[in-house]
Amino acid sequence: MTRLFMFEKPLGMRDTLPDLYDRKQKIKLSIENEMKSWGYLFMETPTLEYYDTVGAASATLDQQLFKLLDQQGQTLVMRPDMTAPIARVAASKLLKNDLPIRLAYSANVFRAQQREAGRPAEFEQIGVECIGDSTISADGEGIALMIHSLQAAGLEDFRLSIGHIGFVQTYFLQILGTDERVEALTRFLYEKNYVGYREHVNELALSSIDKQRLLEFLTLRGGRPIIEKAFDLLENDIGKRAVTELQQLWDIISDFGLDEKVTFDLTLVSHMSYYTGIVFEVYAGNVGFPIGNGGRYDLLLRKFGKQAGATGFAIRIDRLLEAFVVDNEEYERTSCVLFSSERRKEAFEYAQKQRQLGNKVVLQDISGVKDIDGCTSQYVDITFLVGKSGTEVVLK
Amino acid sequence: MTRLFMFEKPLGMRDTLPDLYDRKQKIKLSIENEMKSWGYLFMETPTLEYYDTVGAASATLDQQLFKLLDQQGQTLVMRPDMTAPIARVAASKLLKNDLPIRLAYSANVFRAQQREAGRPAEFEQIGVECIGDSTISADGEGIALMIHSLQAAGLEDFRLSIGHIGFVQTYFLQILGTDERVEALTRFLYEKNYVGYREHVNELALSSIDKQRLLEFLTLRGGRPIIEKAFDLLENDIGKRAVTELQQLWDIISDFGLDEKVTFDLTLVSHMSYYTGIVFEVYAGNVGFPIGNGGRYDLLLRKFGKQAGATGFAIRIDRLLEAFVVDNEEYERTSCVLFSSERRKEAFEYAQKQRQLGNKVVLQDISGVKDIDGCTSQYVDITFLVGKSGTEVVLK
Repeated sequence: MTRLFMFEKPLGMRDTLPDLYDRKQKIKLSIENEMKSWGYLFMETPTLEYYDTVGAASATLDQQLFKLLDQQGQTLVMRPDMTAPIARVAASKLLKNDLPIRLAYSANVFRAQQREAGRPAEFEQIGVECIGDSTISADGEGIALMIHSLQAAGLEDFRLSIGHIGFVQTYFLQILGTDERVEALTRFLYEKNYVGYREHVNELALSSIDKQRLLEFLTLRGGRPIIEKAFDLLENDIGKRAVTELQQLWDIISDFGLDEKVTFDLTLVSHMSYYTGIVFEVYAGNVGFPIGNGGRYDLLLRKFGKQAGATGFAIRIDRLLEAFVVDNEEYERTSCVLFSSERRKEAFEYAQKQRQLGNKVVLQDISGVKDIDGCTSQYVDITFLVGKSGTEVVLK
Repeated sequence: MTRLFMFEKPLGMRDTLPDLYDRKQKIKLSIENEMKSWGYLFMETPTLEYYDTVGAASATLDQQLFKLLDQQGQTLVMRPDMTAPIARVAASKLLKNDLPIRLAYSANVFRAQQREAGRPAEFEQIGVECIGDSTISADGEGIALMIHSLQAAGLEDFRLSIGHIGFVQTYFLQILGTDERVEALTRFLYEKNYVGYREHVNELALSSIDKQRLLEFLTLRGGRPIIEKAFDLLENDIGKRAVTELQQLWDIISDFGLDEKVTFDLTLVSHMSYYTGIVFEVYAGNVGFPIGNGGRYDLLLRKFGKQAGATGFAIRIDRLLEAFVVDNEEYERTSCVLFSSERRKEAFEYAQKQRQLGNKVVLQDISGVKDIDGCTSQYVDITFLVGKSGTEVVLK
């Protein structure tokens, strides 16, 4: 093992320098306010959870978990998502009399990465969970709030795709017969490997009609007419419930006036084990990965002893930031008051007045600066309160 | 090992439920805005750092570190403080041409606890670091900004004590002669164990005059006259530099108009190895631990290859929250629109209008609620948009 250079950070760990921090804060605050205005209540959970409880419920691949032992010998994990911890809190403290609850979070999550992947191992998510409401209205609200949140952040160029895990599973099971074969085929969708999907279908021991139906499944992407197309592909009643839910969802989204923002993509599989119904994903601009995703997860609460339908979504702040063109002009600038000790009090009072007007003002004792030109070049303007004179000098 | 109950959290880990979250956010935002108005730039560093670099620099007791191994076999730590990571970033990226830089953070830090202690193992700090400025003005600014930050958060009942590690060390060394003896006696101050201090002094092989000087040292607490008293205790020039710095600091704080908020406490030792000069601590109301502390740490940057004086402070958000009397009346309330599908669109439009007026509105499909009375009792008012009628009904 080579010796660490003193500035090195662990794999996948990043610093957020001030300009990025400010842009991030502004976006987070806009989204947080939007979510609050829809009645979602923000909360926090700890960074560390027990591996056996929340770690297991999160359904994150074991090699992606950051694990450690506590002093009692129990295995802990750094939370790989926020949905499982929120389900824990909802089940233990908040779900009462089966009343729907709306919760939200803005938090870092942790997923260990391989060296070659170059992906962040710690990233921030802002999201909501609506727990205890099994209506399609709750799914529709999730999608509408996702769209409104992104718009509140100032994003315009994005598209939301909607799928239905229940439809995929029943449709595949009807043709393939066993859960193992369904899972094998589903994995190609999860990886968005459509070439592999086609090859796999062609190698299956199936009638040419069934193969055709599995290949036609890949074309189930588009607007409202996709729903009729999905109906036509069904051989019997199985799968109809899912399609009916998508129909209802479309009507709800239309009532929200948001139908132009969404398309159907019935090949969408966002997670191998988590979701149970309607799922959705958002892509923005040229960002190569979804900036957010969500869906219905009606079985998760059972892991914490409750029967409760739930739906939610999360926006990845790092990817959302990538979707914006940075406008440096917009970045707020700071003034500086350079003072010497004789005029310290005057400098303090001057700075305080400027701050009360909403300006950002650095107070700098001139004896603490070796390079005055270098110092002054950092600020939008400089006020010198130096020496005995009673007048201020403003430069720039 | 007994089997874990599904709701359990690791030792010292806490959930923050919505009402506390909102109070915390409000306080953090006020402090963050205050710090920004003084020209401090907020940034973030990763939760995980290398044990050999930042872990070592943080000078946290080894048994308090949460450690884990990464996939390359390196030991990582969950950051036990923010000063060392910020020093890493400053030294590697931000410190240029010896210009002073002002950085700030709002972040969780991690310190493993013993079962019996009942203390949080994860807690939030908001703080600043002024790096590259060795003037007493920078120390004064830290103290003034600490006071302004707490006032911005709405805190009135607090007191700030100021000490000087340099004074303690030179004074003790002058009498005790060896670093080991200095450290042994200093530890009693660090633990605020004044009874132990007295006993220890009386057991030392010293002249009665020297013992008397060590015991008198404990009386160095109070206002401006303490500085003259400290001068009088000194036998020679050693230690005078520290006292002169305290004199200058007092004048600066007076110029800020904040002298009524501070007292001297020359017995103050906030950390066993970190600080090098002026240190300070804030206590509020009936909170048993300091809600914040800070000081000068001129040697830390050396661990990252730079020579730069630095001073900073951190406020503990959990303890600051304890200092406030909770006023539940103030807590913002939420309205609810209960709708049936026939009037969904009307409900959406109504809710959206209310939200645009700055109100918090939950949209709830009535078919998703089993217990209507239980549901409605949660909200400040309810609008029913149910059935075919065209009029809304507002209850409460």
